[in-house]
Amino acid sequence: MALDYLKLNDSNSIRIPAEDLHEQVAAILQGVGTPAEHAEITARILVSSSLRGVETHGVGNAVRYSRSIESGEYTVPQTTEVISETDTTALLSCGNGLGFVAAHQGMEMSIEKAKKFGLGMATIRDGHHIGMVGYYPMMAVEQDMIGMAMTNASPAVRPALGARPRVGTNPIAFGAPAGEERDFILDMATSTVASGKIGLAKRLGVRMPVGWAVSAEGEPIIDPPEDRGEDWAMNPLGNTREQGAHKGYGLGLVVDILCGVLSGGGFGTQLSGGENMTWTMAIDIARFR
Amino acid sequence: MALDYLKLNDSNSIRIPAEDLHEQVAAILQGVGTPAEHAEITARILVSSSLRGVETHGVGNAVRYSRSIESGEYTVPQTTEVISETDTTALLSCGNGLGFVAAHQGMEMSIEKAKKFGLGMATIRDGHHIGMVGYYPMMAVEQDMIGMAMTNASPAVRPALGARPRVGTNPIAFGAPAGEERDFILDMATSTVASGKIGLAKRLGVRMPVGWAVSAEGEPIIDPPEDRGEDWAMNPLGNTREQGAHKGYGLGLVVDILCGVLSGGGFGTQLSGGENMTWTMAIDIARFR
Repeated sequence: MALDYLKLNDSNSIRIPAEDLHEQVAAILQGVGTPAEHAEITARILVSSSLRGVETHGVGNAVRYSRSIESGEYTVPQTTEVISETDTTALLSCGNGLGFVAAHQGMEMSIEKAKKFGLGMATIRDGHHIGMVGYYPMMAVEQDMIGMAMTNASPAVRPALGARPRVGTNPIAFGAPAGEERDFILDMATSTVASGKIGLAKRLGVRMPVGWAVSAEGEPIIDPPEDRGEDWAMNPLGNTREQGAHKGYGLGLVVDILCGVLSGGGFGTQLSGGENMTWTMAIDIARFR
Repeated sequence: MALDYLKLNDSNSIRIPAEDLHEQVAAILQGVGTPAEHAEITARILVSSSLRGVETHGVGNAVRYSRSIESGEYTVPQTTEVISETDTTALLSCGNGLGFVAAHQGMEMSIEKAKKFGLGMATIRDGHHIGMVGYYPMMAVEQDMIGMAMTNASPAVRPALGARPRVGTNPIAFGAPAGEERDFILDMATSTVASGKIGLAKRLGVRMPVGWAVSAEGEPIIDPPEDRGEDWAMNPLGNTREQGAHKGYGLGLVVDILCGVLSGGGFGTQLSGGENMTWTMAIDIARFR
């Protein structure tokens, strides 16, 4: 639910057919050594984000992923690995490569397990950015299942009673089919806004509302900062104690536990910028009839 | 995380040993026909809430449950029923009786299934109030598992861009063991505050902060209202559009889907006051090693 003044429109962007965009994004990723199959998965998810209007997680990111591959921050080609597996559960390694690849595999495994055993869950370590987290529950919804996904990140958000960044924006996504109606898809950072929104405000040259971020002294700031650092922090959803900041903070910790602790991949201040651990789940609705 | 001016203290409450309180609460419930086993479960959860300082969900509620039993709103003695069950899933009926009884059974079944198959989940229809929702994840944590529970309720909260109550306060609870540290327990309404906080403000004669509730015209109100109705609504967590009200609202709908839609027990405006459907899950941590 992007605020109107943060929406891209015909005056500040250009229109390109989705198919062309998909081919271009896949070509960019293959150009830096990504195997075709992995480039396809990543391009599909990025284009899907742009088509849904989630600009912050769309095709614009292909360039930075390419840079991360070229700089060696991402290991590409990557080897994803099933570290351990039971009928209903899986622990995966993303092999330090494109997060999309292992998150997609994790949700595919969750769906397969749910088909056989009712529920399926995967937690993924050694990972990077997975894009629009709402994409993965949508995979489950296509199979008439309920899907969930979460991903954690390096610190950007202050704890409820703190002022320095100690938790990631740690988004939660949930999807459920709705028969004749449109699918129900929730995809939300556990901070007041996704960090991409602050980047978008910067890019569009607009100020942030009071409540999105604070200085190192805990005072509201409205000019979008340039970089991450100890001198400012995003607010957890709820913002103040009276308005429930502990809830946004608490949800952020839930994401850290399922993605970073359960996987052993790391959480909060253990993560460097660009590191993201992921969790997926699928629920076979038919088992509850 | 109760605000200080909403905390009970020695000047506005009396101290009673927990064991005496448990016996008294169980006796009150048995006095109106509750079977001993069901009274024991309910008393244990209510006393646990009071001991944790969650006054809004503590022993003070025993009297209203008793009235609901006496008036016939609750069917007591109740017959809980396993409507359908698979290795990992269960659909239960609370038999229109004390919500505690079926929620406790749902989490016990979730834990048993998780022990055998890694994951366990139950959704419960025909139910009533389950008290402090955080109690149920704590049952899983005692077994070295991650636990989750949610419960929905009749409308009290406005949708993100609305002003009338259409969603319950629909709380989410999550628990994880933490080794030598204290267990991690999150228990939060998806509204800015739990409705009990507004009741407590009323009882203590204090005003609410701006941001907790609005009039039917969407204007902030600060005097705690007497009863539920169309003339006021609680705010979803996030409060305003710019501060993420759609996130609190969206989380409330997730709770409605897992508790009310998955169980078939009803959600949102389908529920009358006092009706609550419940969802529980347990995750065997050991499967992810």
